[in-house]
Amino acid sequence: MKRTLGTCYYPEHWPEEIWEADARRMAQAGLTWVRIGEFAWSRIEPEPGNLNWDWIDRAIEVLAAAGLKIVLGTPTATPPRWMLHRHPDMLAVDAHGNPRKFGSRRHYCFSHEGYAQECDRIVRLMAERYSKSLHIGAWQTDNEYSCHDTTLSFSEAASEAFRTWLKERYGSIDALNRAWGNVFWSMDYDSFEDIDLPNLTVTEPNPAHVLAFRRFSSDQVVRFNRRQAEILRAHSDAPISHNFMGRTTDFDHFKVGDDLEIATWDSYPMGFLEDRVEAAADHKRAYARQGDPDFQAFHHDLYRAVGKGRWWVMEQQPGPVNWAPYNPAPLPGMVRLWTWEAFAHGAEAVCYFRWRQAPFAQEQMHAGLLRPDSAAAPGLDEAMQVAREIADAPDASTASAQVGLVFDYDADFAWTTQPHGEGSSYFQLVFDTYRALRKLGLSIDILPPTARDFSGYKLIAAPGLMHIPEALKRAFCETDATVVLGPRAGARGPEMEIPVPLPPDLPGLDVTVSRVESIRPDMPMALSGEGNVIGYREELETSADAMFQLKDGSPVAVANGNLVYMAGWGDQTALNRLFSSLCNTLEIKTMLLPEGVRVRDTATERFWFNYRAEPVETPVGVIPAADLVRQAL
Amino acid sequence: MKRTLGTCYYPEHWPEEIWEADARRMAQAGLTWVRIGEFAWSRIEPEPGNLNWDWIDRAIEVLAAAGLKIVLGTPTATPPRWMLHRHPDMLAVDAHGNPRKFGSRRHYCFSHEGYAQECDRIVRLMAERYSKSLHIGAWQTDNEYSCHDTTLSFSEAASEAFRTWLKERYGSIDALNRAWGNVFWSMDYDSFEDIDLPNLTVTEPNPAHVLAFRRFSSDQVVRFNRRQAEILRAHSDAPISHNFMGRTTDFDHFKVGDDLEIATWDSYPMGFLEDRVEAAADHKRAYARQGDPDFQAFHHDLYRAVGKGRWWVMEQQPGPVNWAPYNPAPLPGMVRLWTWEAFAHGAEAVCYFRWRQAPFAQEQMHAGLLRPDSAAAPGLDEAMQVAREIADAPDASTASAQVGLVFDYDADFAWTTQPHGEGSSYFQLVFDTYRALRKLGLSIDILPPTARDFSGYKLIAAPGLMHIPEALKRAFCETDATVVLGPRAGARGPEMEIPVPLPPDLPGLDVTVSRVESIRPDMPMALSGEGNVIGYREELETSADAMFQLKDGSPVAVANGNLVYMAGWGDQTALNRLFSSLCNTLEIKTMLLPEGVRVRDTATERFWFNYRAEPVETPVGVIPAADLVRQAL
Amino acid sequence: MKRTLGTCYYPEHWPEEIWEADARRMAQAGLTWVRIGEFAWSRIEPEPGNLNWDWIDRAIEVLAAAGLKIVLGTPTATPPRWMLHRHPDMLAVDAHGNPRKFGSRRHYCFSHEGYAQECDRIVRLMAERYSKSLHIGAWQTDNEYSCHDTTLSFSEAASEAFRTWLKERYGSIDALNRAWGNVFWSMDYDSFEDIDLPNLTVTEPNPAHVLAFRRFSSDQVVRFNRRQAEILRAHSDAPISHNFMGRTTDFDHFKVGDDLEIATWDSYPMGFLEDRVEAAADHKRAYARQGDPDFQAFHHDLYRAVGKGRWWVMEQQPGPVNWAPYNPAPLPGMVRLWTWEAFAHGAEAVCYFRWRQAPFAQEQMHAGLLRPDSAAAPGLDEAMQVAREIADAPDASTASAQVGLVFDYDADFAWTTQPHGEGSSYFQLVFDTYRALRKLGLSIDILPPTARDFSGYKLIAAPGLMHIPEALKRAFCETDATVVLGPRAGARGPEMEIPVPLPPDLPGLDVTVSRVESIRPDMPMALSGEGNVIGYREELETSADAMFQLKDGSPVAVANGNLVYMAGWGDQTALNRLFSSLCNTLEIKTMLLPEGVRVRDTATERFWFNYRAEPVETPVGVIPAADLVRQAL
Repeated sequence: MKRTLGTCYYPEHWPEEIWEADARRMAQAGLTWVRIGEFAWSRIEPEPGNLNWDWIDRAIEVLAAAGLKIVLGTPTATPPRWMLHRHPDMLAVDAHGNPRKFGSRRHYCFSHEGYAQECDRIVRLMAERYSKSLHIGAWQTDNEYSCHDTTLSFSEAASEAFRTWLKERYGSIDALNRAWGNVFWSMDYDSFEDIDLPNLTVTEPNPAHVLAFRRFSSDQVVRFNRRQAEILRAHSDAPISHNFMGRTTDFDHFKVGDDLEIATWDSYPMGFLEDRVEAAADHKRAYARQGDPDFQAFHHDLYRAVGKGRWWVMEQQPGPVNWAPYNPAPLPGMVRLWTWEAFAHGAEAVCYFRWRQAPFAQEQMHAGLLRPDSAAAPGLDEAMQVAREIADAPDASTASAQVGLVFDYDADFAWTTQPHGEGSSYFQLVFDTYRALRKLGLSIDILPPTARDFSGYKLIAAPGLMHIPEALKRAFCETDATVVLGPRAGARGPEMEIPVPLPPDLPGLDVTVSRVESIRPDMPMALSGEGNVIGYREELETSADAMFQLKDGSPVAVANGNLVYMAGWGDQTALNRLFSSLCNTLEIKTMLLPEGVRVRDTATERFWFNYRAEPVETPVGVIPAADLVRQAL
Repeated sequence: MKRTLGTCYYPEHWPEEIWEADARRMAQAGLTWVRIGEFAWSRIEPEPGNLNWDWIDRAIEVLAAAGLKIVLGTPTATPPRWMLHRHPDMLAVDAHGNPRKFGSRRHYCFSHEGYAQECDRIVRLMAERYSKSLHIGAWQTDNEYSCHDTTLSFSEAASEAFRTWLKERYGSIDALNRAWGNVFWSMDYDSFEDIDLPNLTVTEPNPAHVLAFRRFSSDQVVRFNRRQAEILRAHSDAPISHNFMGRTTDFDHFKVGDDLEIATWDSYPMGFLEDRVEAAADHKRAYARQGDPDFQAFHHDLYRAVGKGRWWVMEQQPGPVNWAPYNPAPLPGMVRLWTWEAFAHGAEAVCYFRWRQAPFAQEQMHAGLLRPDSAAAPGLDEAMQVAREIADAPDASTASAQVGLVFDYDADFAWTTQPHGEGSSYFQLVFDTYRALRKLGLSIDILPPTARDFSGYKLIAAPGLMHIPEALKRAFCETDATVVLGPRAGARGPEMEIPVPLPPDLPGLDVTVSRVESIRPDMPMALSGEGNVIGYREELETSADAMFQLKDGSPVAVANGNLVYMAGWGDQTALNRLFSSLCNTLEIKTMLLPEGVRVRDTATERFWFNYRAEPVETPVGVIPAADLVRQAL
Repeated sequence: MKRTLGTCYYPEHWPEEIWEADARRMAQAGLTWVRIGEFAWSRIEPEPGNLNWDWIDRAIEVLAAAGLKIVLGTPTATPPRWMLHRHPDMLAVDAHGNPRKFGSRRHYCFSHEGYAQECDRIVRLMAERYSKSLHIGAWQTDNEYSCHDTTLSFSEAASEAFRTWLKERYGSIDALNRAWGNVFWSMDYDSFEDIDLPNLTVTEPNPAHVLAFRRFSSDQVVRFNRRQAEILRAHSDAPISHNFMGRTTDFDHFKVGDDLEIATWDSYPMGFLEDRVEAAADHKRAYARQGDPDFQAFHHDLYRAVGKGRWWVMEQQPGPVNWAPYNPAPLPGMVRLWTWEAFAHGAEAVCYFRWRQAPFAQEQMHAGLLRPDSAAAPGLDEAMQVAREIADAPDASTASAQVGLVFDYDADFAWTTQPHGEGSSYFQLVFDTYRALRKLGLSIDILPPTARDFSGYKLIAAPGLMHIPEALKRAFCETDATVVLGPRAGARGPEMEIPVPLPPDLPGLDVTVSRVESIRPDMPMALSGEGNVIGYREELETSADAMFQLKDGSPVAVANGNLVYMAGWGDQTALNRLFSSLCNTLEIKTMLLPEGVRVRDTATERFWFNYRAEPVETPVGVIPAADLVRQAL
């Protein structure tokens, strides 16, 4: 595989006179790709039915003439103002009942059929016009689904679509009442028409109701994307992609990925650290100019799985951004480090967002590779350095990982529906697990909950799987790999109910969770030996061997055949004990990496990354601050 | 009096086949009572007018056959979905103007006459059917009035009812304008029709307006309950009860209690500690698995007063709950301790909520005496132990307390209307006082503000009585007991106005509050000697003797005849000084109890409770963690 | 100039029988002024068209008979309830879309033409009746514009007026689209009718849109006030004033000031400290009973500029207030200190709010000079002491300051629109600068952004001027004074766009801001030598001399000719370094004042104020706590 670089460009933002110079400069910088079009609807169709493709034609021509390949985005994330005259009720509605108004972006409800048909139309027109162009290297659907909390909508359109979805799922209202346990507070419905969205209730709504709404909302995103993908595919052979975001769990990315050839994501390490990483202030301080050492890697591995192996970084932060609570400049070297880290995890391409900083509108303080005055911003030099380096690098193919980590969006829906303790989150649990494995120097594959064949893996971690379908339970029991489950493994049936027999109810695992509790974060429960259970714990009935216990002797981790059950949320020390011990047994080679240092293997190389602001001594020598070392394997 | 135990059961949640085994098991566990029916409206009347009592008939039959007595609840806290077709405007409306939608419980506005008539109808039907049943030992009206902040409603129905209430109270709009001081910001009204509810104003509304709305809202709860009580009483001789909550001060429980034979309350010590007790993190940590050492006792004493001596715990937490920010498991022993503490305070019965943990809906993570798989949960053993112990215990009657503490819901309305300093709360002031008295080993009676005869008491504490009716002022002056008043004693007239002469204006108390101030919580004002005034202080004009003073000589506590005035909010050290000194003078025996240990007397026994997670040395020997000692008097 | 005292009086609140005694007592206390009328509309016009001036006539007669002069307020801040029957849509609407209801004050939208005409009418009637009265010494328009966050309204009236304003500003919708960069996310508008107010958008709206809305909203206040001023001026020669508030930056006070003869403001040192000063808890504790040592002085200087030299304190806090999070009593001496400090800064008059504490309505806990029972409150004695002192004082005229500080409301609009880092605020930046200068013992003039002639000043500080008009740029370059600019100097063009060439783009200043960043508040960036940059920093391209640098050598303050550029937000230590050094060079005499001590000169005297709660040693001897020393110059 050839590694490539690219950038995101908005010809509509700049005078046509400078397009050519921009294109030439991109090519000279070593860029291969340029993404265009995804926010340009108002310039493509300035008034309903009046299509103006000429400027895109010319932009493609100019860019292609410089040797660049185009990723063409459908413009559906930014419907023009006139669309609201045609579909006044297309706006999403927030949980308080307020329409989410025009004036920024993503102001549509996924369930609005009228808007969906407008999207069909514009996508079809775009596909018809450009599908024969040799310059189009890939398509992108929409932009950052769910960004700005846009998956859930409490509109009338969503309400109607939800009822339809419920009818299809449950068949009869009696079945729904039974499945949800609506008898509980006289919540029985007489007909599907009586069911409302689960917002603004007096106290919490039925968790089965909430979970159904979350599953429905996820399905609406999948459906919305599929319509575009099917139209594009009917016209074009170019691969179809979508640019996902970081820590966005409101819809099932694996299901959207099923309709794509390539998964891409938008990687903003520093913005995400301030905005989406749960960590103590000293961690945020230490990595304020670098980003969290594991957050990018986690998403690289996640989206490699979503893309079934094919994935890009579509938007790589090239400098300070505008949208986080604080927006510092990165340490010199970090743009290069982030780019190489993506390649180490198997990215085909890394595109910088954006070519030139826009001097106007919402992202005017978002750095580009160029400053608003067209001078080179610091990120450009680092990008050019990577361009030179990848030209010389060996062909890259992804390493075979020995360790798999299951990530299940449906589990996230269930945890979000019922965190039980304040601040408890499935994403955080999986991320804690990922971090612990990665600190041991391991390369990790993230696996979807539809995985059934674990051959090739020695160790599978599958924390927090609230509901485990029978086939997956069987696969866990039958694999040769050691599988680490819990907490909350199989804690719910398909409709959010507690199953009887009690969880986890896996054949071959002699464990019953007899009682669960959530605990104040300032009350860690100490293990015998090092480490703690924090926030959430389960009491077990088991005759299996305890790998470790609380000081009072209660089992926390128990092993039974190839299955290990973790009866609580371990802190990093506890997780390190668990996985060190298991890897040792399984003859998986680990090393305890220095603070801030991380490792990732490709088939031929081991990459060492130093996320710290100081040089660090490592087995491959001192790595300077914000730098990396490539070690041939 | 015979002490009894019981539980809360939902036959509609379980297959009819297991009712009999459940009943038998309850009886075997030593339970006497089983409460049913209070959330079952959708199964009693699946569609309007189609009544289905058969299953309740059978459930009562099966339970009674096992020797259990029934508490039958009216189902009005959970109107079925079809009710909204008949009364679309019956929903309560929150302070932001959003209807509080169907999908959980308590989704009715107390002021909606149409819904009130539906309640009349279903209660009458229930009373007619079951009033002759010998198995019905008591009735319960509705469930947990005000839970989920449901007393205040900003609906159109509330608005209209408020205007009617105002007309009755004030007679003429001029009288209202004068009473409220509406001249202040040209807020004069020309007619009652112009008066709106006091939400969404530009800045704070007139406190007289807010207080009137709070009094009205309280009266609406009283009225709603009275309608049910009158219907039940017209048909049945069984006592009528309602299950109140902890720290719920939005309506006058004494007035509701006037229409009941028995007050009951729902005691969730651990949920309340996390959710409703104001305390530092170390206190919350220390008692996270036990509950606050005074919170239950306070409410036991409060509801004993509300029930005019007759009271139960209708719902006793038997394990982890689902609704607090964190939901840990109790220490072994606590379920027994909580139960015995209720009996020590004079409870007739303690019922555990609930019999079996429901695997579905909102409370699926709320422990029962049984697990969802019908195995015994840890609470069951402790309940059975108590059942054996009460069988052997001497007949219990409540001790005569020497100390009374006045609790006035109207004072809470006034403090809530105008806390003056951030976080200032009447409930907290009274609770601080209660805690200080109880740490001295005292048994306390809580008294309503309608009390006029204090004979039998040596000491009356009446902190924070914002408005003191003339008759109560006289009673305080004329009693032989020492009465401790202030801060904010008589600080307002009946319409929230500052009275002239200035407060407290009690004959026989030479004290005038010349100026008041609220203070940052991080600015304690040190007393000469130990202790501090915190948060709120008053400057006095007085020639009375100072019991203690600020370091600058300003009087804080002054004594004048039988009256003591407290010119600020004392911390626990200050309150201990005050009450130790007064008890010493009054020859009330006190003892300073160890941290976490509390004492309560019945007529024949002294109970020692150790709330700590460690054994504690006490005058009656070492008490193990989470345990109690009964000492004959 | 003769210094005078006054008070605010509400004859409509008190029985007419006591007016005369009140008036006599005011005069005996040494007061000159009494403000009346500003909340009395419901008593002036109890029903539409039925005017009742008689009681005001009598009140003026009684007050004037005692020798008092009247400030007569227009009653437009409190439209009566009947006004809503005539103009149901006159209410302002909050950003969530909720009308801000009747029941307090300021419940009008500045853009509602119907209400504006009602104001024209009542102001004209008032002017006609009282313009010939010799007793009217001054007029006041409305009351505290913007108080309770009332400048911004999201009503339909505001929406329509905004569109009209936009049409006038931009002429064509294309011009607007270009100016705002609406191409960015397909936000182009087809007509002005399509433009909505910038609330409730999915993510942040276009900053150009927000800034336009803020400018429009400010203009609406100016316009509203101008209508009243023009009517009054057409009838009367008495000076016209308005009472502004502290830290209120939502409208351009200089522009309102252009329509007034006198600027007044309402000074609540302790309320503001708790509510509006950003400071650490220890600072708030240290000055809880005194107020911030610089907050009053800053506003005295600001409103002296707004009033073009003529200014008063219209409402001086005389004791505890009711509206801050905590409302302590002031230290003895502070009422006198605050009053004298206003005079030291050039106030013509200081009026205490209010004469007698009202026992009713929203401000019942707001102290007056009298208690509700008419006894003297502690503030009265201090006011009387000042009255005696000013009688003996030399004629006062304002000192010529050597240091000017530019304050630009439009810059505040821009910072508020785009703070870039959490908590970043223009007001705070200017206030930090003011505090640093004042700690050096300097007397400061605040200057409007329309200033062009800086002669007489040696040093001009102009931090944070986001947009600098060309004429002001020229004035900065051409003055003999040293001008300190930055951070964010000229960072935006007139439409919120980043200018090219990059900022600050001042002729004669060789500085280009190449990159900006916001930083976590817990990440101070240390300077070589003492001090830090906090929160916000800029990278510079410059060949100018660095006055100081970060430890890595990056320039922070650079000097170039008469211009100094500050490339970040300096802490107090950094600012002290900067200004000490500049003053030294410029031969401006400074002294580093002890903590809590401040100095202000008039033409003939130097005033030393000790804001601390302890005596402090100073060059003029020990100043007792909360006291002052007057030193002849």
